[in-house]
Amino acid sequence: MNILLSCVGRRTYIADFLRPYLQVGEKIIGTSSVALTPGFSFCDLGVIVPPICHEEYIPAVLDVCNKLEVGGVLSLFDQDIDRLSNFRDDFLDAGISPVFPSADVSRICFDKVATANFLKEHRFHGPKTFSDLNGTREALREGSLHFPLFVKPRYGFASEHVFIARNDAELEVFFNYRNDMIVQEKLRGKEHSFDVCSNLDAEPLAAVFKEKLAMRAGETDQARTIYDPERLELAFRLARTLGCPGPLDIDLFIDGDRAAVLEFNPRFGGGYPASACAGADFPRILVELMRYGTYTPDTLSYRNQVFMMKSYQIICGTEEELNDNVVYASDI
Amino acid sequence: MNILLSCVGRRTYIADFLRPYLQVGEKIIGTSSVALTPGFSFCDLGVIVPPICHEEYIPAVLDVCNKLEVGGVLSLFDQDIDRLSNFRDDFLDAGISPVFPSADVSRICFDKVATANFLKEHRFHGPKTFSDLNGTREALREGSLHFPLFVKPRYGFASEHVFIARNDAELEVFFNYRNDMIVQEKLRGKEHSFDVCSNLDAEPLAAVFKEKLAMRAGETDQARTIYDPERLELAFRLARTLGCPGPLDIDLFIDGDRAAVLEFNPRFGGGYPASACAGADFPRILVELMRYGTYTPDTLSYRNQVFMMKSYQIICGTEEELNDNVVYASDI
Repeated sequence: MNILLSCVGRRTYIADFLRPYLQVGEKIIGTSSVALTPGFSFCDLGVIVPPICHEEYIPAVLDVCNKLEVGGVLSLFDQDIDRLSNFRDDFLDAGISPVFPSADVSRICFDKVATANFLKEHRFHGPKTFSDLNGTREALREGSLHFPLFVKPRYGFASEHVFIARNDAELEVFFNYRNDMIVQEKLRGKEHSFDVCSNLDAEPLAAVFKEKLAMRAGETDQARTIYDPERLELAFRLARTLGCPGPLDIDLFIDGDRAAVLEFNPRFGGGYPASACAGADFPRILVELMRYGTYTPDTLSYRNQVFMMKSYQIICGTEEELNDNVVYASDI
Repeated sequence: MNILLSCVGRRTYIADFLRPYLQVGEKIIGTSSVALTPGFSFCDLGVIVPPICHEEYIPAVLDVCNKLEVGGVLSLFDQDIDRLSNFRDDFLDAGISPVFPSADVSRICFDKVATANFLKEHRFHGPKTFSDLNGTREALREGSLHFPLFVKPRYGFASEHVFIARNDAELEVFFNYRNDMIVQEKLRGKEHSFDVCSNLDAEPLAAVFKEKLAMRAGETDQARTIYDPERLELAFRLARTLGCPGPLDIDLFIDGDRAAVLEFNPRFGGGYPASACAGADFPRILVELMRYGTYTPDTLSYRNQVFMMKSYQIICGTEEELNDNVVYASDI
């Protein structure tokens, strides 16, 4: 069984984390639409596929999976997951485990308005969210909403075009900067996250609670694990309500007793290496699930106060050297 | 002789690049104002110093240098260089090579208005730069300036609070977002950079020309070297005019025949690993300069078309493990 890391990008560590659980001869295959992809250097094989939005994308991924005996597909990129999620059945029909959610669940994660509606419907605390200026201004007038406010793209990621508006003039200009902007209450408290791992039936198996200590380009740059079983109940309840096979990253703010969920992504979060180091071995669970369809973890425990920091890994070489293990999907 | 990497931050690779040129027993010492610093893990010793702006900062750094037999100081952070540059003589008096520029030169690099004035005075092409709205609007009316325009902090770094204004309403809100904003013409063409290395008398010894292929959080994420001796003349002329000991990173845009300089920083740039891999061994030059005060490079050549990509290096552990080699300056 080989494993496909779809849109492997620059999270090279995921390949490193999976590798110990492969058997002799099994491969990690990464995909990307561009040859210059850091993750390729950490995969056994890099495959260049059409861009995610291209009509040939899904057929190409399925073709790669079939020809290269892929047993399970894990994606590292939200937009990719949103596309793949529409074709879960095609992967299942081909005997490949899709370690990503259904289209409905992906949409709840990917669309910040859908996220807000989901949280409200299921009585999780979350930020007040507005998709129009009139509603925002009314809430401000009523006193149920206060500056500063986040103004960000409804389908945004990596903190791109995220503004903080401190008055109405800023609110108006930021809101009109793109045509898909939303306004969101700035949550109080410290930023935390959960890493959750669920089985292929979307039943959560393990979770880790962490504090984010530093962010960079929208990604967790430093974090520490906090062992707090009571707090994990929120992670399990949200994961169970949502229903997301594989890894789920939940961002939340803790302000005293109140925990408010900002967003969640159906993939490994940027802070996951802290959890891995603390003993929450999701890659092992995922490989077992892909291989046998089922897995019962020994224990849900992990080490408290494990710190994680990121720095740079440098990958250098000529084009030839870097593309040594890279092929075009159409050439397989 | 030991080497001090001041404000070592997350550029762990600089320590790795310097290490081969140390003699047995010589140490790389990193400083930071916080214990959780990725760079510490790649230094022989990490020293926690007061914050850069604190009045005890310079005495603490000098004290560390004296007690730990530091022969040369290299800083990796613009704000730190701007502070250290006022105390070059104190380092020289203590027999320590300051591998950073004078306060005048640092100010030209650090202050985007001073940069623009320097470029204009010495007839280098650069972006039209305005520090007030009236001047900007007049130039727009005259037709000598056009939207879109960059609006950014005069002393900013890491792309923080950099906006792109496409109309007057955006220009006004972005300009008023902070009280130190400037407006800058958006340069046409592709983003490139020079890595220059000068001796302690600020005479440039070597330079590399690169194309930036991807940016992330204001830092070069992917780049390739281009061997083009004619193009390097601009790098040498600018470095010689400016006068900056040690490494100098110059950002420029190439549009056909026209090269316009955006800015320059008196330190290793984020794309330097591409140059290192291509054979432009600045760390070797710098260690020789610190050790002997002089260095004549064998050759100014480097390999063409060497690509560099960055991914994540993960540093994990308990607080105790991560601070194994870290001390407070006051405890030395």
